[in-house]
Amino acid sequence: MNMKSLREVCVVGTGMIPFGKYPDTTLAEIGWPAVKEAIAESGLSPKRIDAVFCGTALGGMLAGQRVMKTLGISGMSIINIENACSSSSSALSLAWLSVASGQHDVVVVIGVEKLTKFGGGVLPLEKEDWEVNQGMVMPALYAMRARRYMHEYGLTERQLAEVSVKAHDHGALNPNAQIRKRVTLDEVMNARPVTDPFTLWHCCPTGDGAAALVLTSGDVARRNDTKPVRIVASEVTSGLYTDGYRDMTWAELTARGAKHAFEMAGIGPEDVDVAEVHDAFTIAELMYYEAFGFCAKGEGYGLLSSGATSLGGKTPVNPSGGLLSRGHPIGATGVAQAVEVSRQLQSRAGAHQVEGALVGLTHATGGGIAGLDHGACSIHMFSR
Amino acid sequence: MNMKSLREVCVVGTGMIPFGKYPDTTLAEIGWPAVKEAIAESGLSPKRIDAVFCGTALGGMLAGQRVMKTLGISGMSIINIENACSSSSSALSLAWLSVASGQHDVVVVIGVEKLTKFGGGVLPLEKEDWEVNQGMVMPALYAMRARRYMHEYGLTERQLAEVSVKAHDHGALNPNAQIRKRVTLDEVMNARPVTDPFTLWHCCPTGDGAAALVLTSGDVARRNDTKPVRIVASEVTSGLYTDGYRDMTWAELTARGAKHAFEMAGIGPEDVDVAEVHDAFTIAELMYYEAFGFCAKGEGYGLLSSGATSLGGKTPVNPSGGLLSRGHPIGATGVAQAVEVSRQLQSRAGAHQVEGALVGLTHATGGGIAGLDHGACSIHMFSR
Repeated sequence: MNMKSLREVCVVGTGMIPFGKYPDTTLAEIGWPAVKEAIAESGLSPKRIDAVFCGTALGGMLAGQRVMKTLGISGMSIINIENACSSSSSALSLAWLSVASGQHDVVVVIGVEKLTKFGGGVLPLEKEDWEVNQGMVMPALYAMRARRYMHEYGLTERQLAEVSVKAHDHGALNPNAQIRKRVTLDEVMNARPVTDPFTLWHCCPTGDGAAALVLTSGDVARRNDTKPVRIVASEVTSGLYTDGYRDMTWAELTARGAKHAFEMAGIGPEDVDVAEVHDAFTIAELMYYEAFGFCAKGEGYGLLSSGATSLGGKTPVNPSGGLLSRGHPIGATGVAQAVEVSRQLQSRAGAHQVEGALVGLTHATGGGIAGLDHGACSIHMFSR
Repeated sequence: MNMKSLREVCVVGTGMIPFGKYPDTTLAEIGWPAVKEAIAESGLSPKRIDAVFCGTALGGMLAGQRVMKTLGISGMSIINIENACSSSSSALSLAWLSVASGQHDVVVVIGVEKLTKFGGGVLPLEKEDWEVNQGMVMPALYAMRARRYMHEYGLTERQLAEVSVKAHDHGALNPNAQIRKRVTLDEVMNARPVTDPFTLWHCCPTGDGAAALVLTSGDVARRNDTKPVRIVASEVTSGLYTDGYRDMTWAELTARGAKHAFEMAGIGPEDVDVAEVHDAFTIAELMYYEAFGFCAKGEGYGLLSSGATSLGGKTPVNPSGGLLSRGHPIGATGVAQAVEVSRQLQSRAGAHQVEGALVGLTHATGGGIAGLDHGACSIHMFSR
């Protein structure tokens, strides 16, 4: 990519609703308050919106149009993006390009999902995929990877449970989190089993949610009164589908995406002040510490237990509570992460503020259909 | 948009499968042959593919990843686009931008849909939308518009039926058409009624299909042996949602998009040699003649009956057979139109070739949820 010809892109508005279960609310009704908040924060007239990119995995046809119609804002380009758990982070990447390239000046990005429409916790995965047909649903996939990791690196169930304790410590401080309560190590250990070695508190909840951003060019942002947050890297990549052996303990897709994103941003893992990573299950967070280079391979638990990734540590990870506590309405997650990191870099994250954070990253990865590795991964880096 | 900083983008490869009903074939199996054909035509190594944009409206999660995994080509950016009937034309627009901006050099665009998975002809529209709940499904919406048009302009049912005759005359010549047979005016008039004034032959069929393109920058295209087709306009827009009266006989969304696209291409309707427009129902084709300025408002039938829009006429419209005859597997349509127009401009459309065509356009518009107007419209213009 020839970055020289691309413009600076900034986040100038953020919005989200508290994630949770809204079974009696339509997708459009879940989505519009987040968009309204983001537009209001931006201080820009809705008339200036050139385009809308809406990420949703299971929201049905024309989700973005339905949200914007409810707000009474229409007539611009509206495009909906699906990339499983990376749906709205992929939407963010396309929105970034549309501003960076000069195509648009003011763009809204939406992440919205309503999982309660499917009833209980079971998501409608693709029956065409033989892995899914054979039981390779997400909790099973991550459990396999956890068991292998425990075998390779001597991680215990009790140590793994500490990831959940940290996530809920953070989420308890976040008014937008779906699960706003602390859990103890014993509570995690003794909760009902899901897929060995995971109990319920090792797994992110399902639920509903919406989040939104307003992006503008640097020029427009600087004419504004807000504290713009620059997007310094935007990366989308897909898994390498291969037969045969692969290292289940190594998040190859994320590591590859992280390498590209760090190169694009011109920074390294040591420069990151705050990170929101895709902790759909406890083991994932440890593997992503390693994939981002926050620690060496196999040393994820050491980093966690040092306190470095907790609020107050060197590189707080998932100060929002992450997927485990803030929640994971699939298509909404990527933009919710970007809302969190933007607010962190603007020093307005409230009780879960990371003091002095100037550089942050978000990471959403999803799709189990490839068996061991994932279908899509999107990483963004931000700077004040 | 500041077009000066954008690069020239060319179609260098096209592929599609014959549209039809493939109930025993998975989405991935429908999709991959089209992609393989497009890559083979391009003469480029699959290793050079930087990104994939896959349009599908109802294909489920990670459709593009499933198609590319089946082909064994992965590890690049893959993003799925949903925009109802404009899904893959919106994907084309994003792919165009990614090349035009310099982000990517070689990009694959896919349109793929498998409607037979829903059984009979009924599509799963959004139950959240009150218009849908009140019966405002597509055949009803277009029938209302047809009746109003007939009232305003004195169009008869028999005249309207001529649109279907022309579509099937063209489609009978296209080996990729779903309905490869001529129909007579009496057959159209006497077919079973669907929504008055439409009989079955006034309505596009449902079915399955896939189509694909390879796009590159002009530089890459010129180093290649193929006959590149330049994309000279790429437009996506959304409907204006308003209460109260509006002119049902005027395709406002399409007219607005067409105006932008003509401005971007620097041409006018008189310059168009071939057009693929969104004739989901017979009346639509006449309204789109008018929206594109091929004739004045209310004069669509006059243009049709003059022969100008038939093969051999001044501006053949839907030489492929259009949605009525080639078929309309929702998300696949936009890219199928682009495949058709690209091949027309390369003088290799076979029995339905438009002689000497140098400039063409495609038009896909969709989503009935806004009641009278549509959710998304995407227009592309091409030139040799």
